Amino acid sequence: MRKLLVCSLLIWMAMPLGAQVAERSRAEIETFNRQFVEAMRQMDNIAIMELWADDGISLLPATKPIVGKAAIQAFMESVTSQLKGARMERFELQCSGIEVNGEMATEWCVEHQVVHLADGKPPFDGRGHMLLVLRRGADGKWRILREMWNQAEAE
Amino acid sequence: MRKLLVCSLLIWMAMPLGAQVAERSRAEIETFNRQFVEAMRQMDNIAIMELWADDGISLLPATKPIVGKAAIQAFMESVTSQLKGARMERFELQCSGIEVNGEMATEWCVEHQVVHLADGKPPFDGRGHMLLVLRRGADGKWRILREMWNQAEAE
Repeated sequence: MRKLLVCSLLIWMAMPLGAQVAERSRAEIETFNRQFVEAMRQMDNIAIMELWADDGISLLPATKPIVGKAAIQAFMESVTSQLKGARMERFELQCSGIEVNGEMATEWCVEHQVVHLADGKPPFDGRGHMLLVLRRGADGKWRILREMWNQAEAE
Repeated sequence: MRKLLVCSLLIWMAMPLGAQVAERSRAEIETFNRQFVEAMRQMDNIAIMELWADDGISLLPATKPIVGKAAIQAFMESVTSQLKGARMERFELQCSGIEVNGEMATEWCVEHQVVHLADGKPPFDGRGHMLLVLRRGADGKWRILREMWNQAEAE
């Protein structure tokens, strides 16, 4: 274990500074992704909204662009209120292609969710793709600046 | 006219360097947008592909992610070959929210296209939203790193 740590440290020290910064940003974005998954699994709107930038924009299919954190929050609350008694049975997110440039980054994700609905309705089982643009705030935290979602291909 | 030029120059000189750079990037991206519109209007796949980064990814609805410029080109050629005799009657793009950070930028666009089809078929009239992530190459040109499209809301 100690040998592994020393090796990791040596690899890290051998990297040019730019690569070290990019590596750190990627690790931070992976942490962001885990927080996003956890918030979605809990259907925790407060935790989800903490991951959005104030000037964030969400682009959903067949929906007017939702511009600004306040509008996104209102949209999420309206969805939640229509889904009383619903429970996220499963939420999986596989993100790839993290690209970082300074305080901006992008990644794209394959998403699968199964939502258990109330009143004996059949569960919602949906698969989609997401494109995210993230920005690191002055506090060092990555937040969603742009999000777009569309439907995945049939299995 | 001369007064206007002097005024513009004075405003430019009064800007902090960072703002000048961001202003220049925004102007470059507006040029990129005009080139994109022109290439789409002409249905000119060669000109469109010049606007893509080698490691670009396109995310279209109900379609597997198209990864890399070669795959995107093959996809576009397959679409074109299925649309023999088609002509772009109208292609409009309204882009907003340009955000630049160093060599990376993002914007989102509202798109409307009317494609005249051959064999007396009714024209295709579609409206969508696009989310773009652009990267400036070593040659100073902005190219598409990520593109996602989804359907716009009903009118």
